[in-house]
Amino acid sequence: MTNHEDAAETPQAACYAVIFTSLRSRKYEEQDNGYEETARRMLALASRQPGFLSVESARDKDGFGITVSYWRDLDAIKAWRKNIEHREAQRLGRAQWYEFYNVRICKVEKEYGFSADKL
Amino acid sequence: MTNHEDAAETPQAACYAVIFTSLRSRKYEEQDNGYEETARRMLALASRQPGFLSVESARDKDGFGITVSYWRDLDAIKAWRKNIEHREAQRLGRAQWYEFYNVRICKVEKEYGFSADKL
Repeated sequence: MTNHEDAAETPQAACYAVIFTSLRSRKYEEQDNGYEETARRMLALASRQPGFLSVESARDKDGFGITVSYWRDLDAIKAWRKNIEHREAQRLGRAQWYEFYNVRICKVEKEYGFSADKL
Repeated sequence: MTNHEDAAETPQAACYAVIFTSLRSRKYEEQDNGYEETARRMLALASRQPGFLSVESARDKDGFGITVSYWRDLDAIKAWRKNIEHREAQRLGRAQWYEFYNVRICKVEKEYGFSADKL
């Protein structure tokens, strides 16, 4: 990449984020119904997909959760979305586990952070 | 916007997401130390900023949390980041409330969802 002022600048390591927000079904909140096992299985399976970078996840006590997975490019995200075992999990998610979910596919343009350890 | 195949297509309502992931300090996990009040105040203040669209948040029992706020454009995000009261909250966050945090600024390229109510 050149530094000429007319040259486009792109991030050195552009990546994509999939923001998955969901609310667990009230109906199933006291019966796991295979959810935890499938969630673990999907995490393991996703992390073996080509182009997978990392994942982070939090769910509060009311059942609302946000999972963000990071991927090298859109093709990697597309391939994971179409994975046959993942498709079945998506179907079960709609049928049993979630009141709603939203998926947002985003390009990460900038990142910065703070760690108390580094002070 | 034209539909000519050579014409660039852009999302009808592009927006930006700020993914804020954080871990609450262990040291302060049993003393609130103004955290909850400031968090509420920042939420109220952010939602009144020009270009603010929405926010969603989840924190698990171990203190790891993800907050995603959505904004109309990068200028709106920049203005909020520089807000004087928000700056003070950031300082307190680093000094007292967080073990670490990461901020990722992303362009939302695609979104879709599911709701059990709509079936």
